[in-house]
Amino acid sequence: MRTVDLIRRKRDGEELSIEEIAFIVDSYTRGTIPDYQMASFLMAVYFAGMSDKEAEALTLRMLESGETIDLSSVSGIKVDKHSTGGVGDKTSLIAAPLAAAAGAMVPMISGRALGHTGGTLDKLESIPGFRTNLTVDEFRENLRMYSLAFMGQSEQVAPADAKMYALRDVTATIESIALVASSIMSKKLAEGIDSLVLDVKVGSGAFIKRQVDARRLAQMMVGIGRRADKRVQALITDMNQPLGYAIGNALEVMEVSQTLQNAGPTDLTRLSLELAARMIYLGRITMTLDDARELAQRKLLDGSGYKKFKEVITAQGGNAQVLDRFDLLPNATGAREIVCPRPGYISGIDAELIGRAATMIGAGRDTKDDHVDPAVGIILEVKTGQKVDADAVLCRVYYTKDDRLEEAAELVEDAFRISSAPPEDRELILEVVG
Amino acid sequence: MRTVDLIRRKRDGEELSIEEIAFIVDSYTRGTIPDYQMASFLMAVYFAGMSDKEAEALTLRMLESGETIDLSSVSGIKVDKHSTGGVGDKTSLIAAPLAAAAGAMVPMISGRALGHTGGTLDKLESIPGFRTNLTVDEFRENLRMYSLAFMGQSEQVAPADAKMYALRDVTATIESIALVASSIMSKKLAEGIDSLVLDVKVGSGAFIKRQVDARRLAQMMVGIGRRADKRVQALITDMNQPLGYAIGNALEVMEVSQTLQNAGPTDLTRLSLELAARMIYLGRITMTLDDARELAQRKLLDGSGYKKFKEVITAQGGNAQVLDRFDLLPNATGAREIVCPRPGYISGIDAELIGRAATMIGAGRDTKDDHVDPAVGIILEVKTGQKVDADAVLCRVYYTKDDRLEEAAELVEDAFRISSAPPEDRELILEVVG
Repeated sequence: MRTVDLIRRKRDGEELSIEEIAFIVDSYTRGTIPDYQMASFLMAVYFAGMSDKEAEALTLRMLESGETIDLSSVSGIKVDKHSTGGVGDKTSLIAAPLAAAAGAMVPMISGRALGHTGGTLDKLESIPGFRTNLTVDEFRENLRMYSLAFMGQSEQVAPADAKMYALRDVTATIESIALVASSIMSKKLAEGIDSLVLDVKVGSGAFIKRQVDARRLAQMMVGIGRRADKRVQALITDMNQPLGYAIGNALEVMEVSQTLQNAGPTDLTRLSLELAARMIYLGRITMTLDDARELAQRKLLDGSGYKKFKEVITAQGGNAQVLDRFDLLPNATGAREIVCPRPGYISGIDAELIGRAATMIGAGRDTKDDHVDPAVGIILEVKTGQKVDADAVLCRVYYTKDDRLEEAAELVEDAFRISSAPPEDRELILEVVG
Repeated sequence: MRTVDLIRRKRDGEELSIEEIAFIVDSYTRGTIPDYQMASFLMAVYFAGMSDKEAEALTLRMLESGETIDLSSVSGIKVDKHSTGGVGDKTSLIAAPLAAAAGAMVPMISGRALGHTGGTLDKLESIPGFRTNLTVDEFRENLRMYSLAFMGQSEQVAPADAKMYALRDVTATIESIALVASSIMSKKLAEGIDSLVLDVKVGSGAFIKRQVDARRLAQMMVGIGRRADKRVQALITDMNQPLGYAIGNALEVMEVSQTLQNAGPTDLTRLSLELAARMIYLGRITMTLDDARELAQRKLLDGSGYKKFKEVITAQGGNAQVLDRFDLLPNATGAREIVCPRPGYISGIDAELIGRAATMIGAGRDTKDDHVDPAVGIILEVKTGQKVDADAVLCRVYYTKDDRLEEAAELVEDAFRISSAPPEDRELILEVVG
């Protein structure tokens, strides 16, 4: 098998066999296919795509390249939730406690912020004392005790994916539907879960800009999961403006606390409840999705989701008091107001620009090795559709260092679109796949 | 400037600036852009293409990466001819002597066989004693003396192109119109020529399969040449069957000799005359193309092209007697007849399969370091359109070693398509660009 022939055939739109995909993954992981051939192969995949069969073969081979987590000793149906990445997306920290409070077993294996999007682990680590680096034994034990545990992904999981992802990052081949689907599913299938709820983000703040692409990605991941005997559903949700009002790690934890006390933003509450309901339903706690929705709602209203989150924070070494006393969280030292240049309606808030600005002042990472400042971020004062006067405060930028503040403030200003007429309403949950 | 951003923008169909193209070429040549980023960039170019402006910027920067040949001390308008590569294409060895005999100054800088296509230098080197490795001084002196000299390309010409070409070869990115146009023109513009006749091959035996792509390539090269103040014309010619009857280095020299004595195949004679006429016309020997055609024809009929070729062979150390005595050329030791499986009409002779078979028995190279056997090759006994009986000899495979003979013979058998009705006539010269 000559690598250049496989690249050419993929380039020309041919379907590669399971064996050929395996050859590429294994040879690249071993180092016998050099980076430059893999790079051109990945760009060919970006353009020519992959069939469901190819994406599944890629997923399984990357999965087999590493270790898997055995959760079979923990009874119950294990259900995880994964988002393709957004700005201000803290739904995991709300939906997971709600689902766990409702009786679902929720092993949450999460990621970190990268580029303009946030990461669940960074948010959790803004809570003083919170440990995300559990051992697998600790993770399993916490899951058994509290029905919910949070952990980062081990480097032993899908190392082939890790090597390919690093190459994709520097060769502009991240944004391939088949590669994203395979990357996510290879890691999720390694987790020992039975069910999975996917949140596929689409819009300015997501790496997928068009709903048709989001649908294809959702269908591919649901298909891969099902053929691996998992119950999988995907929501396609709007990411044309940040979710909720808070962007930045500690700021988002504060908003999570408010939301779990039923005092959060409408959009965030609504999506978190729907995700929790899907987790409850796929975790077979209820027979119907409507029952699951009702149960999730009840767990929000009676405060048991909030209690569950506190319990898990304590179990993982964190100071759960932060949820009531925000002064115990890392706090920014300065705030810059961004004001409205003219009266009108907010017709859009470019989530990518907001996310990039937040990353710029330290809330996220441009590269894996960047340090995250848990205190900083942005709090929106308005959302899309709202009427604003001139000089109204659009948002506040919370910072601890001001070296890139001006640049970030400019991005934030650019993010707000003001129109003279109110914009059309946009759906938050656009589609369900699976 | 971040390389990954340039790759992404090219991937997304944006036009890069002249400075950005220069940055990529220079950084890659210097080694500060790694192979893997260049590989993904090249694959992005394969899919997204390049504008004329981008291709011109790429050409000029690759040209500037190396040396140029100064022929200004040689008087007269210097005109070269270049083919994008075919099977059995020995027109350079016919058209160049005819044009030189007609008074044009013809500095021929030629290439070697690669893949299934042949190369002028290898053909010339099948003539005992023939030296293609002239110094630039010798080349200039021979050109002055005989109006025609043949030479290989120096490694000091367009080294950026050489480095990129080697990478393209192993990453399935050879077949990009913009990259081919830039690669060819960067080398041709380094030659100190005033005019250029291009022969863009299209069909099964060419790397370009569709006429629309051939047209785009021709237009791009003509445009680049003209903006560099060269007179350039391109013919788009059919390569759905080998040109002439002979494929293989010494075998092709024999056919060149026959053709220069006006006893060659019709297709080869016709195309060689047209190319010679264009060279004569662009070399400003005649005022009109029709006059040039008449002159080329005369130089064929009166034997002065033949005489010119002998003169140049002698001048470059070769034994010109080979043109009259084929036994002085390297000769194969065995011949295998390929016979017709059933009566009918030859509806096609797949030139790529014929070329690959010839390469397999040693007439060409799979990789740059392969050794070429000058004696071996294939002589067709039929051409497309001809009526054949069962058991008629379709061609003969001339070999010196039989280790891959069976495999080659099978390819050759596959190359012939037999139909019950005569195929439609196909034009040899499809289009003229410029």
